[in-house]
Amino acid sequence: MIQLEPIGVIHTPFTVKDGMPIQSSRSDIAGSLIVYPEFTHGLVGLAEFSHAYLIYLLHESPEPVQLRVKPFLDDQEHGVFATRFPNRPNHLGLSIVRITGATENTVLFEGADMLNGTPLLDIKPYIPEFDIFDVTRIGWYAKRKYK
Amino acid sequence: MIQLEPIGVIHTPFTVKDGMPIQSSRSDIAGSLIVYPEFTHGLVGLAEFSHAYLIYLLHESPEPVQLRVKPFLDDQEHGVFATRFPNRPNHLGLSIVRITGATENTVLFEGADMLNGTPLLDIKPYIPEFDIFDVTRIGWYAKRKYK
Repeated sequence: MIQLEPIGVIHTPFTVKDGMPIQSSRSDIAGSLIVYPEFTHGLVGLAEFSHAYLIYLLHESPEPVQLRVKPFLDDQEHGVFATRFPNRPNHLGLSIVRITGATENTVLFEGADMLNGTPLLDIKPYIPEFDIFDVTRIGWYAKRKYK
Repeated sequence: MIQLEPIGVIHTPFTVKDGMPIQSSRSDIAGSLIVYPEFTHGLVGLAEFSHAYLIYLLHESPEPVQLRVKPFLDDQEHGVFATRFPNRPNHLGLSIVRITGATENTVLFEGADMLNGTPLLDIKPYIPEFDIFDVTRIGWYAKRKYK
């Protein structure tokens, strides 16, 4: 058993899942994250990056976890680890957001695709040399039903 | 308090941190991940993607957590959330690996940058439309000491 503690909370305009963007790359909605006082020193230098990963808890994903899911963009079932579907083991969410500003304990961003009140677990800078790859296969996504 | 359970374990040639690649994009080392029996149905379709995110526990990162760190590629301190340094709150690691094969419960990959025996928490497919961004600022990384 692994025990984690949120480092802060994410604020967005979304109070219900219906109508929420399915990915940050498809969202221009602003959000903010408030980091708890004991972690604010860890934010120094973050806003000098234009993009960052947020890792967070999909805290309103229902139990039980599903291992075969129909993702939002398809009408076929796929293994949950071949999708970004939220109802997944460990309920970990991952978004890449565009950083627009920061104060001592707050980071402003665009690309919100998570619920208001989402528990934040980690932030990592997005660095093209580390994070952009030449992809050759995109599985079911190439044949997806919806765009 | 959030409680997670590993979905499997990552096997790599690395039994000590010294000499390990600092990022998967800088590694051509092969690894494999073994998913526990209760989660194997979630792998269906994953190997049809060429790349995937692994989220895992940096299980040998020492306590106490540091909030200001010198990353491997610089000689200056930065806030830990402005770096990918492993000794961070919640000890969550993130790697993008190149999938080279799969069986029912095993995924073979290249790009190993984590220790043998690393507890695996999640797998998500890497999808260019969701994961490739036009970055405009890369903070300290642009002025880093080491290449």
